Amino acid sequence: METLKAKGYGATGSIFSSLKPMTFERTPPKADEVLIDILYCGVCHSDLHQVKNDWGNTLYPCVPGHEIVGKVIEAGSSVTKYKMGDTVGVGCMIDSCGHCNPCQEEEENYCEGPVSWTATYNGPMKPDGSGYNTFGGYSDKIVVKESFVLRIPDALDVKSVAPILCAGITTYSPLKHWGIKQGSKVGVVGVGGLGHMAIKLAKALGAEVTAITRDEEKRVDAERFGAGQVLVSTDKEAIAKKELTLDFILVTIPDEFEVNAYINLLKKDGVLVTVGLLAPYAKALNNMNMAMHRRTIAGSLIGGIAETQEVLDFCAEHNILPETEIIKIQDINNAFDKMQDQEVHYRYVIDMQSLKEEEIS
Amino acid sequence: METLKAKGYGATGSIFSSLKPMTFERTPPKADEVLIDILYCGVCHSDLHQVKNDWGNTLYPCVPGHEIVGKVIEAGSSVTKYKMGDTVGVGCMIDSCGHCNPCQEEEENYCEGPVSWTATYNGPMKPDGSGYNTFGGYSDKIVVKESFVLRIPDALDVKSVAPILCAGITTYSPLKHWGIKQGSKVGVVGVGGLGHMAIKLAKALGAEVTAITRDEEKRVDAERFGAGQVLVSTDKEAIAKKELTLDFILVTIPDEFEVNAYINLLKKDGVLVTVGLLAPYAKALNNMNMAMHRRTIAGSLIGGIAETQEVLDFCAEHNILPETEIIKIQDINNAFDKMQDQEVHYRYVIDMQSLKEEEIS
Repeated sequence: METLKAKGYGATGSIFSSLKPMTFERTPPKADEVLIDILYCGVCHSDLHQVKNDWGNTLYPCVPGHEIVGKVIEAGSSVTKYKMGDTVGVGCMIDSCGHCNPCQEEEENYCEGPVSWTATYNGPMKPDGSGYNTFGGYSDKIVVKESFVLRIPDALDVKSVAPILCAGITTYSPLKHWGIKQGSKVGVVGVGGLGHMAIKLAKALGAEVTAITRDEEKRVDAERFGAGQVLVSTDKEAIAKKELTLDFILVTIPDEFEVNAYINLLKKDGVLVTVGLLAPYAKALNNMNMAMHRRTIAGSLIGGIAETQEVLDFCAEHNILPETEIIKIQDINNAFDKMQDQEVHYRYVIDMQSLKEEEIS
Repeated sequence: METLKAKGYGATGSIFSSLKPMTFERTPPKADEVLIDILYCGVCHSDLHQVKNDWGNTLYPCVPGHEIVGKVIEAGSSVTKYKMGDTVGVGCMIDSCGHCNPCQEEEENYCEGPVSWTATYNGPMKPDGSGYNTFGGYSDKIVVKESFVLRIPDALDVKSVAPILCAGITTYSPLKHWGIKQGSKVGVVGVGGLGHMAIKLAKALGAEVTAITRDEEKRVDAERFGAGQVLVSTDKEAIAKKELTLDFILVTIPDEFEVNAYINLLKKDGVLVTVGLLAPYAKALNNMNMAMHRRTIAGSLIGGIAETQEVLDFCAEHNILPETEIIKIQDINNAFDKMQDQEVHYRYVIDMQSLKEEEIS
């Protein structure tokens, strides 16, 4: 079978977790697939988790990247939605079973099929880590089924749009699912890649946003993104004053944290959703605080394809773009270090021209 | 001010947690209050928690009892809802602020007023334990504002109805709030005082009920209460087979437990509500299992007065009664021991005639 030569940056094992240039092969587009020339790819904290095998399910070699923006350069014979030259995006998923209830309800991200949905890199998203490998967007090209490809609205700057495909949809989906609207009182905990998008999106939905950050220096930025109030998480007094005031809290901290302090900020029937963490919380949840005001805590995982298109269009309509720093692929390991140290403002995006210019043997 | 002499059984301190006969005084009914001659009082697991000061907020002397059934023997001048001789009930609350949003929405159990709602015993339900003491239903009489008094439907056996006032409403309220209806797949974990009512109520609402108990010997009873399937919690294989099958799980275990095993039984958007525990869970919640299927965990605390009347009427309509063992007040300490050892089938109810016949000096 004919293959396409591809190049990218990947990790060969968890103890060699720095990324190195590599070549690999992709299968040419089938009838319902498009070949995409990758222009930009966002750098997500989960790329780092996956490379380091923090979830115990990493398949190596691991070529990360699930915030992909590029141009269609080849379209399969049955493709109708896209044509050569279209600016398109690929997020966290490239396939799902298509038959289960969630897939039928356009929530492929909650696919209950035999192998769950297929991640853009690291293959099917099975909790036990079984399944085949896939290679993500830290590469020059990718082949994806048209039904999992997004249209990038012309109004959105192609250099900065990529993080909407993960950070954007991951925060937009729970805001919409839990009915955030004009006048909702929303807390956003963590002002990073996900958190800064959460603030912008919640504000655009009409919410009054309280941002909570451990970094006083982010106050000005958080206000610029749309937060009406900014609290520093170490200021226990200020946090305590917000008790029973919020309808909804979105926690975007990418590591384990103590959830009970935030639960108390919720009103009766308030909901706290954690999107940054795919692991246990730091401490056991106290059901006393939950029961006294019928509070709810939930998880949420990215969003479906239709809803990803919706957030792209919503961002175009509301002039929302992620805050990005453009880097070269050769800077990726340094970028991972800075992301780990929370020094990124607020999302790195790789300009893939840098990869194309590199000779990789 | 004139007072009424009352007698009851109470604890004088946590290290002397056995209950002893005592006398105390009650204030005669004001214009909007009724005086109730107590006929029966249910024994709730939280009575034991409160007597032992498990929540660190117990005021002594502590006269427990919040599943009270009796007859109106005196009515204040402005009382319109009840008259002498009416069979009435009193649950967990005897007052609330009346002004906050939850009170205005008939959810006095989530009162956000300055002292929260007033518990039938142990005074206002403030997490910090501040407030005045009140004395509950392990006594011969009680004075309660008519708006916090329930009407006991004639169809319900007066000897067994009392546990509906706490165990019934505590399980009914979350089933209703989360929309349990014909065809819902409901799990009930723990088949005790709360759990057996949860099975009966969920079944009557049209749900298919799976009961989970650690006690194989409760299988026959659970089926009789309405469970279509009964699983023993130590049978990990049977539990694992139920993964992704339930819409809603009500956990009624009265002590700390490991919640993650039950979370996995929920479908996408499934909800687990814990009503038995007012403390931290045994282990930290794993957000991986929450996020993968957008699952929710929540708390719920009894129910409002209107909803308590609703569950009483619902039970009358559907011929639902708690399973009770009638005891004398003199057996209460033995009953506490058996409740602690989970040997009660399924709720003790004190026949208060036994108290009235005892001479207490």
